[in-house]
Amino acid sequence: MSKLILQKKISEYIIELSLNRPEKLNALTKPMWKELGVIFKKLSINKNLRCIIIRGEGGKSFSPGNDIGEFETERSNSKQSKDYGKFLHSTLAVIISCPIPTVALIEGICVGGGLEIASCCDIRICGQSSRFGVPINRLGLTMAPREMQPLINLVGKNVALEILLEGRIFNSTEALQKGLVSRIVPDNDVEKEAYETAHRIADGAPLVARWHKKFSKEISNNEKITDKINDRGYECYDTEDFNIGYKSFLNKTKPKFKNK
Amino acid sequence: MSKLILQKKISEYIIELSLNRPEKLNALTKPMWKELGVIFKKLSINKNLRCIIIRGEGGKSFSPGNDIGEFETERSNSKQSKDYGKFLHSTLAVIISCPIPTVALIEGICVGGGLEIASCCDIRICGQSSRFGVPINRLGLTMAPREMQPLINLVGKNVALEILLEGRIFNSTEALQKGLVSRIVPDNDVEKEAYETAHRIADGAPLVARWHKKFSKEISNNEKITDKINDRGYECYDTEDFNIGYKSFLNKTKPKFKNK
Amino acid sequence: MSKLILQKKISEYIIELSLNRPEKLNALTKPMWKELGVIFKKLSINKNLRCIIIRGEGGKSFSPGNDIGEFETERSNSKQSKDYGKFLHSTLAVIISCPIPTVALIEGICVGGGLEIASCCDIRICGQSSRFGVPINRLGLTMAPREMQPLINLVGKNVALEILLEGRIFNSTEALQKGLVSRIVPDNDVEKEAYETAHRIADGAPLVARWHKKFSKEISNNEKITDKINDRGYECYDTEDFNIGYKSFLNKTKPKFKNK
Repeated sequence: MSKLILQKKISEYIIELSLNRPEKLNALTKPMWKELGVIFKKLSINKNLRCIIIRGEGGKSFSPGNDIGEFETERSNSKQSKDYGKFLHSTLAVIISCPIPTVALIEGICVGGGLEIASCCDIRICGQSSRFGVPINRLGLTMAPREMQPLINLVGKNVALEILLEGRIFNSTEALQKGLVSRIVPDNDVEKEAYETAHRIADGAPLVARWHKKFSKEISNNEKITDKINDRGYECYDTEDFNIGYKSFLNKTKPKFKNK
Repeated sequence: MSKLILQKKISEYIIELSLNRPEKLNALTKPMWKELGVIFKKLSINKNLRCIIIRGEGGKSFSPGNDIGEFETERSNSKQSKDYGKFLHSTLAVIISCPIPTVALIEGICVGGGLEIASCCDIRICGQSSRFGVPINRLGLTMAPREMQPLINLVGKNVALEILLEGRIFNSTEALQKGLVSRIVPDNDVEKEAYETAHRIADGAPLVARWHKKFSKEISNNEKITDKINDRGYECYDTEDFNIGYKSFLNKTKPKFKNK
Repeated sequence: MSKLILQKKISEYIIELSLNRPEKLNALTKPMWKELGVIFKKLSINKNLRCIIIRGEGGKSFSPGNDIGEFETERSNSKQSKDYGKFLHSTLAVIISCPIPTVALIEGICVGGGLEIASCCDIRICGQSSRFGVPINRLGLTMAPREMQPLINLVGKNVALEILLEGRIFNSTEALQKGLVSRIVPDNDVEKEAYETAHRIADGAPLVARWHKKFSKEISNNEKITDKINDRGYECYDTEDFNIGYKSFLNKTKPKFKNK
């Protein structure tokens, strides 16, 4: 049996995960959600890792979402779907809470559950012909609140609601305008741009990246930042990597960070 | 006397409301705000309805906002304007809390109070020559906080403030870039696109649309979703429409939802 | 010794501040942060002032951020950088809480601390060749939470994180798409457009501008607006400027507001 999720080392610091069901455009199944969560959880505690890329295998599709064929046996009523949801939501939660920067490499279709995974990543890079949407109003089912939250965090309530109420499939230009993707590149360059992005991240100080992810979660729009939270912003100045970083800048050399 | 707000049935499930004062480009008066609120309240409890479209009568203007001619008699001081505000704000609140999806069909001018109404809808479709803005800094008056909130929810505090501080009138391209409208179409296609959007919504499972509107209001950016809120996301799987929906998908037929 | 921050009167109601270190592209130093805060604090209580413009001296750069040359002596460890941060953060806080509308006139580079200042202004106008970013991941240091908050408020958590994780420098088109600037104009027109914007603001009723800034801070996305907050929206109707404003509108004359 082939693996549900492929793992590939791109560099010492970058790992790539592929949703591996290309014959079905990488439609997601319950075991795939489960496996993706298990792998992400393991990677999350790897202190050496600096970037995780996630993509669909085969180069033609990120994912069209959850496999409708499973509904009969796995999601035919609220009880079953709650059990399905448990895996789905815990996997999304693991991606969201991952301290390592994440990049969604989006080729082709990125719909439904596929779009949910991409929404939980930090950066989303897609090709010109990519297509997006959540056409579940025609399936008669809702996106659960724990799936809607990352989408709302990404594009706001109004855009999220427009996507869900209409159930329309739309192109990459509209996805960019809606804030759903970080950038669009020609179809043939998606892998190249995503890898370059991962390298840009991995070339930076890894502790800094983790701090920034952490800070972004701690900051609320309207609340005053406490001294306790703000003072974490000074810890970097006592790291070896800070010394490497600013001295490399002054010496016009490329810094080689040590993650300490 | 002609009706202040026209009602027109577009289909079994779609109703269209028109601000009916085309000789004044549909400038809003206190009785119009009142009447719009009364009608929206009635429609809101109609379980059969799947989409409400709102537009300006005459095809040339959505609305330029509140009629300045009324200021002398209806809003000449804080006491009067508070009474005026009561109607205005309760009408906006009724639109915001409407459980049925709403679409603003924007032809021509969408300014001031007109833009406030549009901001309370779920989807906003405008024509290329549409113009937007809130030029009240030159009238010497403020948008009340209850009117600002929907605008801020739609475009964020910075863009809302830019609009109010400058009081500049701007075109549809800038409105799209600011996130003020969902999409732009050629002027002659605004009605067509808004109707197609309404039909896309009405063709979806109506309970699903209502759930999605409800969920979007219950989700806060930073808070953990409770089990209680999340579990509402599984209720759909026990509906007849879910069975109709996913089986139609598998059978490649168009679902005909029953709203139950 | 030349002044760190230049002040120039543009009109009776508009003042322009320039970061004055053009030989270093206006790279910011601790004394400049301090001075900027002192000046902004003084201007903030000037009741006659209607708009503050902030720019970089020399026409070639807004600011590339904090001067790296200072790190050795002023920010070489967490203790020093905390002291530096005290000035930096209190200056940003003074700009954010300034009751007078603020416009960032952005020519050329707007990076790091420069972008932080611009993010705290109400409106940002840049030229086509302007460049943006926060490449501190290669310096091995973080943006402190009190610096991140205005950026997050402006562009959202996802975009802010993308900017920080990649540390990429990007052009004005991407800055506009990311919501980082309010508008782009040809390089030669940046001053003209910023001045016209300031005049549009200054031509409006000044109390109205201050109320709108105040309201925008009091409104939270999800909370119900209390009567107490909303009723401040009616105070304008008892001002002399309201009478001037709406009567000028009806008489088709240009209002001349008195700030009372």
